[in-house]
Amino acid sequence: MNIRIVWRTLGKVLLIEAALMLLPLVTALICHESPIPFAVPLAGTALLGLGLSRVQTTRTVYTAREGFVIVGLAWVLMSLLAAIPFVMSGDIPNYLNAVFETVSGLTTTGATILSDVEGLQHGVQFWRLFCHWIGGMGILVFIMAVLPLASDRSMHIMRAEVPGPVVGKIVPKARQTARILYLIYLGLTVLETVLLLFGGMSFFDALLHSFATAGTGGFSTRALSVGFYDSAYIDAVIGTFMLLFGANLSLYFLILVGSWREALKNEELHWYLGIVLFAVVTIALNVARLYGGFGAGLRRAFFQVSSVITTTGFSTADFAQWPAYSQALLVVLMFIGGCAGSTAGALKVSRVVILVKSAATDLMRMLRPRSVEHVRLDRKVVQPGTIKAVEGYFFCYLLLLLAGTVIVSLDGHDFTTNFTATLACLSNVGPGLGLVGPMGNFAVFSPLSKVVLILEMLLGRLEIYPILLLFVPATWRAK
Amino acid sequence: MNIRIVWRTLGKVLLIEAALMLLPLVTALICHESPIPFAVPLAGTALLGLGLSRVQTTRTVYTAREGFVIVGLAWVLMSLLAAIPFVMSGDIPNYLNAVFETVSGLTTTGATILSDVEGLQHGVQFWRLFCHWIGGMGILVFIMAVLPLASDRSMHIMRAEVPGPVVGKIVPKARQTARILYLIYLGLTVLETVLLLFGGMSFFDALLHSFATAGTGGFSTRALSVGFYDSAYIDAVIGTFMLLFGANLSLYFLILVGSWREALKNEELHWYLGIVLFAVVTIALNVARLYGGFGAGLRRAFFQVSSVITTTGFSTADFAQWPAYSQALLVVLMFIGGCAGSTAGALKVSRVVILVKSAATDLMRMLRPRSVEHVRLDRKVVQPGTIKAVEGYFFCYLLLLLAGTVIVSLDGHDFTTNFTATLACLSNVGPGLGLVGPMGNFAVFSPLSKVVLILEMLLGRLEIYPILLLFVPATWRAK
Repeated sequence: MNIRIVWRTLGKVLLIEAALMLLPLVTALICHESPIPFAVPLAGTALLGLGLSRVQTTRTVYTAREGFVIVGLAWVLMSLLAAIPFVMSGDIPNYLNAVFETVSGLTTTGATILSDVEGLQHGVQFWRLFCHWIGGMGILVFIMAVLPLASDRSMHIMRAEVPGPVVGKIVPKARQTARILYLIYLGLTVLETVLLLFGGMSFFDALLHSFATAGTGGFSTRALSVGFYDSAYIDAVIGTFMLLFGANLSLYFLILVGSWREALKNEELHWYLGIVLFAVVTIALNVARLYGGFGAGLRRAFFQVSSVITTTGFSTADFAQWPAYSQALLVVLMFIGGCAGSTAGALKVSRVVILVKSAATDLMRMLRPRSVEHVRLDRKVVQPGTIKAVEGYFFCYLLLLLAGTVIVSLDGHDFTTNFTATLACLSNVGPGLGLVGPMGNFAVFSPLSKVVLILEMLLGRLEIYPILLLFVPATWRAK
Repeated sequence: MNIRIVWRTLGKVLLIEAALMLLPLVTALICHESPIPFAVPLAGTALLGLGLSRVQTTRTVYTAREGFVIVGLAWVLMSLLAAIPFVMSGDIPNYLNAVFETVSGLTTTGATILSDVEGLQHGVQFWRLFCHWIGGMGILVFIMAVLPLASDRSMHIMRAEVPGPVVGKIVPKARQTARILYLIYLGLTVLETVLLLFGGMSFFDALLHSFATAGTGGFSTRALSVGFYDSAYIDAVIGTFMLLFGANLSLYFLILVGSWREALKNEELHWYLGIVLFAVVTIALNVARLYGGFGAGLRRAFFQVSSVITTTGFSTADFAQWPAYSQALLVVLMFIGGCAGSTAGALKVSRVVILVKSAATDLMRMLRPRSVEHVRLDRKVVQPGTIKAVEGYFFCYLLLLLAGTVIVSLDGHDFTTNFTATLACLSNVGPGLGLVGPMGNFAVFSPLSKVVLILEMLLGRLEIYPILLLFVPATWRAK
């Protein structure tokens, strides 16, 4: 491995991060708060970034291994630095808690250790929710979009940072693909902000909730989350935009260039909407009694289902108090997640579809051992190598979930809390059930558990391998 | 599919079942109880069996499809008939409850709907625990051992009924293999009975607990399960025999023919014992405080770990009241289960080892995309087809677990109860956590949930496909 190219790229990442810190700094100034908590880490990050990006290397092409290491290290380093403003502002004095909150932000999880979110300073609040927006698309994809990288071999980076079983390019060049996706992301965020302003939200709240929706993050400026606004219009806007950001963003590119039909024929989209429909209707029936009628139940069911399957984590109802069926179905949705190529976490709908179809094919092979039946997605044959990779990924996912649950259990909380807390972090959902429901928070855990959950969030956001490989000695060995 | 060969074989199964009913009938007579509850179903089963086994067919060879259908139907039919004595005796008047208890017996699950097990008549009690012994090895394997089947193509039957990722034959002929395994099974059962008699148990209790240990079932004649005897000696004997029956029974054949070394080199055995050791030590530390010291904790930890990993389900402590770490680790053991070729349920250690090694190989392939690394078990390369099958099996397992949890949740119990009840049934463990802990029982569930849990038990015992295929229309279509 060429460690110099790793340092050099990390330097660029830190320079971008320093630039991004300008926004909360300006916010602080506008709101008459001290800019120091942002100015100092900004300067430090910029200096470190400058130093690293001066590392000279003749290589301009990334190997797969370097791609993974860069992405893994970049996210760890970014998180450690982005946490500093929280500590310096005094709003989250404990550094580990600040790192937890930052990782939860960047990985678009939305699990919080704060009990008084409304007491945060504006600059801090801005930074907290802006992290969702940064993390949603991924900072390395951003670098590819704006900086002149030497080669298209940077696909290795994209593959390591972008979620889903296979990474497609919508235009021949990876760099242009990244740029188009970022523009779509930006456009939808602006659109949502405007629509929320119409609903009577303040500009600050509208913008920040749009950041959190776009990244499918789930932090809110309000302790009651979106439930605070108690508005059917705002529920509908955010509920719909969560679903939009949970779908494959390249579909919007197809729509923009006029290929409506192709976009709507996307098979993953059909499954995604089908699952949402099933969950919304059955949960609405299950909770109707709680809210005095099917209509009121439907409104709560739509928002919560949309929030959980897209792994956002906003809430307008405390689903940890819902009847058992609704809770169990939401746990299943926490496994599934949104579509590949979206900002959502968890397994992704296309992986689940591949797994289910492959299971059906296995079953048919039992009947006719000599027959050859293919798994198809979008009428194309899914390669056996891809199926194998998805099945292996699924096992790793469960292994990380169970291992995390066991370690977190050392704190002594109940099984439901430990299991769903780990699942909600690994799947980047945010709230779980029990003590970590929408009205609970993650401050109940010990430092060890917080470290484990921080790792689960990073593992989930980067789809396991870039983080796991950092712990494998062979990664660091020369060839 | 040749349906006539299916009927004919089912006829033989029923004749054996009728013969097996003689034992509880005799027990009832000895204990001065009415023999009618056994005599009537015995006669009915025998007549039905006679009728079916008269179906004429020229075919003597089973296809894979027929193997699955025979095994699936045989287990369903056996269960429906074996439940009748419970109803007729008046001890379990509700037929659905009786079927639940019978399936729990035959699948060696050990989940009970009874609250007063000590009030059962002797004949009924005998039949209940004898079902564990019958189900442990499988009745079709028994048929292969004792009846002259025409061909060795009956391997298709063995493959469908015997647990584990690959079925090996220890001697060239499947029939002889089955016979040797049955003798080992019988021998170990007799040995355990004798050892329990030394511990002061009555002959009746010793024999029945040996049946339940051999099948890794977990029903007990006592409401407090093995905890009733409060004897370190009995704990040690049953704890050890559970572990023995959770190991691959062919290893004992190797030992009998003098190949000690080969038996002890078995890799799955090493992992199995390693997992047991880790779980026993860490749980002992975790519960030491509850029992006033590490030694007392060790005794409880050994018995409960041995019981759960072998999917037996006996208890000497109410682990549903244990600290969270112990509970979470026991849940993980419920996924793992015993060794392939044992009477234990769940995924089986060898499957888990293959999954873990395959995940490690996938990780290495990320670093060196062009390298070819093999997964090895017992120093032999595991075929890619086997790995693929194991990974697919794992997904099916989780799918059945989550689907079951969601349906069972309709009853409104808490998530821990629903999740662990479904897992404990699918993995054939018996007790779970929450309301279905060692001191709880499954009577809390609605009829719908009981039907779902009955299916989960059958799916778990027969390793999914023989039961699942019964619901696939293509199974019943002519070629």
